[in-house]
Amino acid sequence: MKNNNGNLLKVAVIGYGNIGKACEAALLSAPDMELAGIYHHSGVPDALQADVALLCTPTREVPKYAEKMLRQGICTVDSFDIHGQVYDLRKSLSVMARENGCVSILSAGWDPGSDSMVRALMLAMAPNGLTYTDFGPGRSMGHTVAVKAIAGVKDALSMTIPLGTGIHRRMVYVELEDGADFHTVEKAILSDDYFAHDETHVTQVPDVSALNNVAHGVRLTRSGVSGATHNQRFEFRMAINNPALTGQVMVACARAAARFRSEGRCGAYTMIEIPPIYLLPGSEEELIRSLV
Amino acid sequence: MKNNNGNLLKVAVIGYGNIGKACEAALLSAPDMELAGIYHHSGVPDALQADVALLCTPTREVPKYAEKMLRQGICTVDSFDIHGQVYDLRKSLSVMARENGCVSILSAGWDPGSDSMVRALMLAMAPNGLTYTDFGPGRSMGHTVAVKAIAGVKDALSMTIPLGTGIHRRMVYVELEDGADFHTVEKAILSDDYFAHDETHVTQVPDVSALNNVAHGVRLTRSGVSGATHNQRFEFRMAINNPALTGQVMVACARAAARFRSEGRCGAYTMIEIPPIYLLPGSEEELIRSLV
Repeated sequence: MKNNNGNLLKVAVIGYGNIGKACEAALLSAPDMELAGIYHHSGVPDALQADVALLCTPTREVPKYAEKMLRQGICTVDSFDIHGQVYDLRKSLSVMARENGCVSILSAGWDPGSDSMVRALMLAMAPNGLTYTDFGPGRSMGHTVAVKAIAGVKDALSMTIPLGTGIHRRMVYVELEDGADFHTVEKAILSDDYFAHDETHVTQVPDVSALNNVAHGVRLTRSGVSGATHNQRFEFRMAINNPALTGQVMVACARAAARFRSEGRCGAYTMIEIPPIYLLPGSEEELIRSLV
Repeated sequence: MKNNNGNLLKVAVIGYGNIGKACEAALLSAPDMELAGIYHHSGVPDALQADVALLCTPTREVPKYAEKMLRQGICTVDSFDIHGQVYDLRKSLSVMARENGCVSILSAGWDPGSDSMVRALMLAMAPNGLTYTDFGPGRSMGHTVAVKAIAGVKDALSMTIPLGTGIHRRMVYVELEDGADFHTVEKAILSDDYFAHDETHVTQVPDVSALNNVAHGVRLTRSGVSGATHNQRFEFRMAINNPALTGQVMVACARAAARFRSEGRCGAYTMIEIPPIYLLPGSEEELIRSLV
């Protein structure tokens, strides 16, 4: 399957951790794309041949690599996940993308990402009301990293357990360095800002790697009002392999980036700004007939 | 709250049944719109003053009233619900919309409509796999109308009961005309093409109006593959007042129609072609900060 120009979209993967590998798998099964190379992010060439680059670097390095790609005239897709900084990043990427005739799609994962689209749709369907996002059960990267930074911790895993209405329990598993004291470590975790506001349980284990599992999930619920009618109830949930879904969403957004560029709509976009049909391969007619 | 031109969007309602009334309620609570009039569809003026007309006529009359509005330079939104005919209607409305510098958004209800957006998103998240749409419990308009057309039936209600994997049971309640024979009516229903392929139960009741209830619902499920990873599971469900949700979705799409027109993108669109953010009032910044 080809794009509008009759060519396969050339997509490169920058960064080759969990997400990079998932992007590779999703690209290999995309009928309208070809893999334009996989690069460890420290080794990206200065003259990459690609239409779109998927940025699978650590989230804090996304701005740097996005700039590097956009300046080469290559569209970018990332899964930047610091919710509070998305808008500002969009602003700076938008300028850079327009200057270079490119499109940058940011925060293209599942949250932020596909969940954001569902939240927007639920809000449109019932403008007054409350939406709750309940994550898990699954590993929280941010919380895990925070525990690993504590003295005496050799390895750690922080699981996010949904308790409903956006309240989460933290189940923390720690493997200690020789001579470290569990109660000292536990106290340090419980008083860390990442954990101080949530119900947190710390457990010592001999081997954190034995707990490794990339399963995750989410449940979005909204009870709201459509027009004058209360008690409209909506729920979206999923149980997924976390990096596999992130990689798939990024690949879908590479398609949207190319489409926006072909329409001359250069700039940066979050997923709530993308028509769902732009995420999909296949003809408009076939998609409208089968999905609408 | 004003649109980009600083003006409230003027939206008229054409047709004043269940959906027309729901549109009125949704319009009255929309911060960026004003009601430009409500018209019984037989009495639409030839020089209506409105930016967008919400077509709340019987579904088969949508093409006629869409044409009438578009020729006056007024954008339209409808909830045309004959799935198999959506693509062809989009084609003819698209020509008319472009000729008149307008935008027409069709099939803007919940199915087709918001469900279509969820199906598209689920497909993007897991390209291989199966999506099932299970409707109900709720009244099926099409099936109810089919029963009412049978000789001896004074009033009827056909309820759709979801049995999973897209299979539905039909619970049919009939109020008979004096002298009609229940078993003859039952046989006619069971052999009607609307019912012949589904598990169907027919019950005689003294008063169908006593069963009146606009509750409805749906459950969309997908189990699929992201990249090379199987067993990715997604579910969307809702339990809603049917016309209230349809009216709210139509009002949200009036916003999208005006936005497309302001961008010079005249033509006809289904909901899978609309960025979710276009459905919402408020600034881009505020929406991205709160939803992404």
